[in-house]
Amino acid sequence: MDKIEHIGIAVKDLEVSNKLFASLFGEKHYKEEEVESEGVKTSFFKTGPNKVELLQATKEDSPIAKFIDKKGEGIHHIAFAVADINVEITRLKNEGFTVLNETPKKGADNKLVAFLHPKTTNGVLIELCQEIE
Amino acid sequence: MDKIEHIGIAVKDLEVSNKLFASLFGEKHYKEEEVESEGVKTSFFKTGPNKVELLQATKEDSPIAKFIDKKGEGIHHIAFAVADINVEITRLKNEGFTVLNETPKKGADNKLVAFLHPKTTNGVLIELCQEIE
Repeated sequence: MDKIEHIGIAVKDLEVSNKLFASLFGEKHYKEEEVESEGVKTSFFKTGPNKVELLQATKEDSPIAKFIDKKGEGIHHIAFAVADINVEITRLKNEGFTVLNETPKKGADNKLVAFLHPKTTNGVLIELCQEIE
Repeated sequence: MDKIEHIGIAVKDLEVSNKLFASLFGEKHYKEEEVESEGVKTSFFKTGPNKVELLQATKEDSPIAKFIDKKGEGIHHIAFAVADINVEITRLKNEGFTVLNETPKKGADNKLVAFLHPKTTNGVLIELCQEIE
């Protein structure tokens, strides 16, 4: 895995949190993007080689809405950049991890993504992501 | 803030989790370190410019033990590298964030560290850290 591509943070109100994280980083978000299939509106901040992605649910049954209901606002996942997501999926399945998307899906920010089930990763929801060329 | 310096993950058993994260990254941890003042034993993995720090409590009243009691294993904090931690502490206080350590303290991995209270940062425990020269 090449680096932490981003940290995903579940928030209730993207507009409020955009201001808060702009104060934190001293710089505003550089883009917003809706991912309809996931029921989320996202915004992205840069911090050197890494990003912070804020996620607000757009539907009641979106995974982010459920997460906030259960745990409150906070860190939702870590995403690691990988060179070849299919190679990593095969390697991690062989290592015994539960891969939730054996076929990677299109995520935000022009990425192919796949998630590992937190039960096999110490309670941490891990995303693998590969830039789409 | 220069980059995500590391993600801190609270684990019950460092030895078990060292193996798990070595399988995940395809590479073992590069060091272990005990921080007695915090009641933790830590191990560090590299992933490009970033690190993952696993934290196991060494005392019942350590913050990591309390975190696991309440929330289970999982992501505990995000640490951002800063060039001058005192400048950042002053800036963030002025922005309205609650800084838990107005005088930075010595953390693991040769760093001066200070934490922001999660109630002012969308539920995210944020660590600022500056390399000690």
